[in-house]
Amino acid sequence: MNVFSYRPSPEDLSYTFGGRPAVARIEPGAIVEMYTEDCFGGRVRSVDDLPSQVCEFPYLNPVTGPFHVEGAEPGDTLALHFVTIEPARDWAVSATFPHFGALTGTHTTAMLTPPLDEVVWHYDIDVEAGVARYHARKSDFTVELPLDPMHGTVGVAPGASEARMTITPDAHGGNMDTPELRAGVTVYLGVNVEGALFAVGDGHARQGHGEVCGTAIEAAMNTVVAVELIKGVATPWPRLEDDHSLMSTGSARPLEDAYRISQHDLVTWTSEVTGLETLDAYQLVSQIGEAPVGNVCDSNYTMVAKLPKAYLGGSGVYESAHERLRALGRQYLAQR
Amino acid sequence: MNVFSYRPSPEDLSYTFGGRPAVARIEPGAIVEMYTEDCFGGRVRSVDDLPSQVCEFPYLNPVTGPFHVEGAEPGDTLALHFVTIEPARDWAVSATFPHFGALTGTHTTAMLTPPLDEVVWHYDIDVEAGVARYHARKSDFTVELPLDPMHGTVGVAPGASEARMTITPDAHGGNMDTPELRAGVTVYLGVNVEGALFAVGDGHARQGHGEVCGTAIEAAMNTVVAVELIKGVATPWPRLEDDHSLMSTGSARPLEDAYRISQHDLVTWTSEVTGLETLDAYQLVSQIGEAPVGNVCDSNYTMVAKLPKAYLGGSGVYESAHERLRALGRQYLAQR
Amino acid sequence: MNVFSYRPSPEDLSYTFGGRPAVARIEPGAIVEMYTEDCFGGRVRSVDDLPSQVCEFPYLNPVTGPFHVEGAEPGDTLALHFVTIEPARDWAVSATFPHFGALTGTHTTAMLTPPLDEVVWHYDIDVEAGVARYHARKSDFTVELPLDPMHGTVGVAPGASEARMTITPDAHGGNMDTPELRAGVTVYLGVNVEGALFAVGDGHARQGHGEVCGTAIEAAMNTVVAVELIKGVATPWPRLEDDHSLMSTGSARPLEDAYRISQHDLVTWTSEVTGLETLDAYQLVSQIGEAPVGNVCDSNYTMVAKLPKAYLGGSGVYESAHERLRALGRQYLAQR
Amino acid sequence: MNVFSYRPSPEDLSYTFGGRPAVARIEPGAIVEMYTEDCFGGRVRSVDDLPSQVCEFPYLNPVTGPFHVEGAEPGDTLALHFVTIEPARDWAVSATFPHFGALTGTHTTAMLTPPLDEVVWHYDIDVEAGVARYHARKSDFTVELPLDPMHGTVGVAPGASEARMTITPDAHGGNMDTPELRAGVTVYLGVNVEGALFAVGDGHARQGHGEVCGTAIEAAMNTVVAVELIKGVATPWPRLEDDHSLMSTGSARPLEDAYRISQHDLVTWTSEVTGLETLDAYQLVSQIGEAPVGNVCDSNYTMVAKLPKAYLGGSGVYESAHERLRALGRQYLAQR
Repeated sequence: MNVFSYRPSPEDLSYTFGGRPAVARIEPGAIVEMYTEDCFGGRVRSVDDLPSQVCEFPYLNPVTGPFHVEGAEPGDTLALHFVTIEPARDWAVSATFPHFGALTGTHTTAMLTPPLDEVVWHYDIDVEAGVARYHARKSDFTVELPLDPMHGTVGVAPGASEARMTITPDAHGGNMDTPELRAGVTVYLGVNVEGALFAVGDGHARQGHGEVCGTAIEAAMNTVVAVELIKGVATPWPRLEDDHSLMSTGSARPLEDAYRISQHDLVTWTSEVTGLETLDAYQLVSQIGEAPVGNVCDSNYTMVAKLPKAYLGGSGVYESAHERLRALGRQYLAQR
Repeated sequence: MNVFSYRPSPEDLSYTFGGRPAVARIEPGAIVEMYTEDCFGGRVRSVDDLPSQVCEFPYLNPVTGPFHVEGAEPGDTLALHFVTIEPARDWAVSATFPHFGALTGTHTTAMLTPPLDEVVWHYDIDVEAGVARYHARKSDFTVELPLDPMHGTVGVAPGASEARMTITPDAHGGNMDTPELRAGVTVYLGVNVEGALFAVGDGHARQGHGEVCGTAIEAAMNTVVAVELIKGVATPWPRLEDDHSLMSTGSARPLEDAYRISQHDLVTWTSEVTGLETLDAYQLVSQIGEAPVGNVCDSNYTMVAKLPKAYLGGSGVYESAHERLRALGRQYLAQR
Repeated sequence: MNVFSYRPSPEDLSYTFGGRPAVARIEPGAIVEMYTEDCFGGRVRSVDDLPSQVCEFPYLNPVTGPFHVEGAEPGDTLALHFVTIEPARDWAVSATFPHFGALTGTHTTAMLTPPLDEVVWHYDIDVEAGVARYHARKSDFTVELPLDPMHGTVGVAPGASEARMTITPDAHGGNMDTPELRAGVTVYLGVNVEGALFAVGDGHARQGHGEVCGTAIEAAMNTVVAVELIKGVATPWPRLEDDHSLMSTGSARPLEDAYRISQHDLVTWTSEVTGLETLDAYQLVSQIGEAPVGNVCDSNYTMVAKLPKAYLGGSGVYESAHERLRALGRQYLAQR
Repeated sequence: MNVFSYRPSPEDLSYTFGGRPAVARIEPGAIVEMYTEDCFGGRVRSVDDLPSQVCEFPYLNPVTGPFHVEGAEPGDTLALHFVTIEPARDWAVSATFPHFGALTGTHTTAMLTPPLDEVVWHYDIDVEAGVARYHARKSDFTVELPLDPMHGTVGVAPGASEARMTITPDAHGGNMDTPELRAGVTVYLGVNVEGALFAVGDGHARQGHGEVCGTAIEAAMNTVVAVELIKGVATPWPRLEDDHSLMSTGSARPLEDAYRISQHDLVTWTSEVTGLETLDAYQLVSQIGEAPVGNVCDSNYTMVAKLPKAYLGGSGVYESAHERLRALGRQYLAQR
């Protein structure tokens, strides 16, 4: 088994997709063990560490990578299977910060009202018990929330010679901030440049739908990814697959356009998988499709369109990459 | 037990919230058994019945009611508990129709492209087996989908002397088209006029998130509602409660505003229920809140903000109306 | 000349389009002289009269009417030519008020930030000099602005048995708040109910594009309208015509949909007027069309699409109603 | 006088802001004479040259540059005064192309309807007569439109190590597509990287508001720009100044956010220039501000907020850079 371990030092972290040389080269079929920092670069460690004071804007949301995948070319699809996503510390943080979040004026939804207060919350993370403990700041209220670790950010270099801040989700992936991106899931990303140049970051111990205050329970992660390359198959927007469902994503503003992109892709994909005529697929998705919200706070909003595979008549997708990668992941876990 | 049965004839159906006299007067504490027609008024019965030909626009989406609730005044809250929602026929229909749906130009998202074809799908409904059978129109593909009956439309008369088409969801309720409005749920509606004047319609055998093609599996329903009045308590936007969760709704365009309204109301409500300071409540909702999509096709879009009650420390809401109504509903079912 | 004068007492004012009986019946071809109150019902008279204290929500934005036009039936078009719009007082007011305006959270763009302060500005109106004098509240700054009187609100009863608050612009007209609706302009409105039931209100001494703070220089007006009925010709959205231009309007959210509606209507209308094929008309409008912003603060936003008639090859519209009404208006003014 | 002339060969053209080395270094105070290609790279020359066939996506909308301005550092403002913008050929073109434009489904406003036809229009440009002649494709209709030459695209390298396609307008400038950017105007751009790295392209012989079909009358240009650097003064979003008005821009989606950004900046700027308290400035802008629409077709939409300087009490902005550059431009023209 081809296992590659990588732990970046702070100066190795990347703040864009595109515009950066690879930190390592990976063979398709490899397992990558990596460490990812939290969205604050690990600088917010207590309720007294205000992001606007301890972080250096715009250097937020660092990703681990980019990794060059041998043989990847524009028009291919990169399959990244998340074997495990494990919180690396026994604490995590969340925060409001000025002009960010869905219920405040922002730099684009510009308002003359003053921003909300900047406040940090510190969570205790207990991986064994599977919980994150919330502590109110202005009262004694405390409650345990179930862990559901995920990555907010995964993507490849964009096309057209672009370099995009990691905070922005778009067709190349990026900061989609969907709780659906948990362990057990395979992400499909269309390759835009030679080597694909994928990167991963922004771990969340858990996250509500839409990340309404602007941040989740932000956590450093130890993450294991199994990598495969599907040659000659293009993918227009990031897609996800788990054992039960197919998922399309869309990232745009306004939010209905993120919905449209994701549902359009799911209808088209369903039509391909099942052989259903387009309007027949549209009808089927209309009745059994789900639409989990990703983020409603980033520079583009993200929606996911999700369909249980049980209703699609048994055809596989992407040459059964998910099944193969899942088996590879289990083999890795058995040997670890 | 005060049980009132009502089956409207076609000319009794209503096409607006507001602007119509009540069809009956109901005492708080009563059970109402009602029949509701489907969104096509029952006129689309086969794949050859095109809505644009058999329906008379804008007379779509009829509701049963309005019912005058004795003693209801502006500033009160009406609680409607859905005891049962049962498909009334062994078939149901769905359709695309011109300039309606999320993936086509509409009268407001105006496009120069021609509309999508108008197509009808006919479903077999088997209540005993709990399934609706989908049949593709252009191939032999067929699949059974689980029934999950719900009402797309419930509301009261709006304030400010308005009368609104039933198709439009807003602060008074209306065509929210959320699958969360199923049996076992209590809906809280702010009263705007004397008697509240509530009405119910637009049954769906099941519906995907967003009702992307514009229609669900449209079905006539036999529905039982338990009614209670909470005096002197206002409700800004429709709220829902089931045994596990509190839910706020928002209906607006663009879709992020529907999200904002619903999340804002849930944060504020959480703060009231738990005593948490506002930003503490914002933080908690950010991590455990869900955001099921209602509709992304109607004249306003609808989002739901949902929070498991387990994390709120045990306080009840609306003077425990849901628990009382649920008990009343069970008593009714036991006697039926 | 058939001249009808009407000055409503406060209890005659209307707060909805639809849902109200006519205050008078008008023959096509008549001139109507009317008085309209300002959007605050005349209750905000000094900088100390805060709208939230002196007004009774939601009873804002009163209109004069509705007027029943003899012979008007659904499918016809009502032509209202504004002969004069003259400020009725030597003062006018403007205000910010909580949760209203483009640069603050509102009831739909819901925010957790506190609202902006409620502030009133008092303007001196000098009709002879043609100016409104602005006075800053927190300094001695003062400046004269040119008068450009207009009506924010004009419309007919909506169809489908609806009644809509006058504050809402939609296909029936309403509170479009476009500065293009000044004296010399003919407004075309599609008739939805017998008698059309038109009404006029919300005079502005002048207004910026978008009415960004939520209110213009709000003024009572003495207004003269010449009325004509165009039988058997439908109008999908309100249109305007002056001596130089044709204008289509659209009212919706998000703002791009208001733009789409108005441009779509202008392209279609241009195609009808010139005989140009649709894409040829699309091209022409793309290069010489203007898009004056109406409002970006009301419950729907309004955009206008405007085309100089000089480029359209000389064909008239609506059977030359504008030219006839303009001549009638001049005749009236000569006799006054 | 320091005059620098630059005519790029096709391989010198740039398709991003950022991510490219400078083509030349410019001293502040210099005049730059440059040639810019049209948005199709000059490849669409007749009605038979369909963009989807003759252009190589995504290599559209080339810009001339980037130019390194000596001494420019992050936190400074670059002032570019457009002395002249002159069509370089006696023809220009416009086109619809698939999934682009405001009245069609696009890659983000995703629709299942087929795209509009791809059609090219060829215009005759007569600089002496000051007209562009439109020819319908499906009929004999033809009409002369006044020339009003402008640049759709001007900007600097973005910050945060980003590189953005030239088609996208944002805080760094880019493809704002506003007709306000004509000769006689000074553009102020905040500097994000050493040397600023400005570039210019996408000339239009004229353009309607919003560029509704997706393209203007696309023309190669000979353009002269006077360059100045304002040290230590930051500019958040591109601003424009001509002899009569100050203008702020905003680029975002939905369109109301572009409006909000531009109006927010204009209110803040007005407050700085006049000393008016913020709400007093908000009020003044509300009554005399204009809001010319830029584009409603690009990946971000653009709005301009415009205020006549006559109402601001005579204070200059940016250390009177516009007046100085305008004088320099006149001196250059006198000597040419």
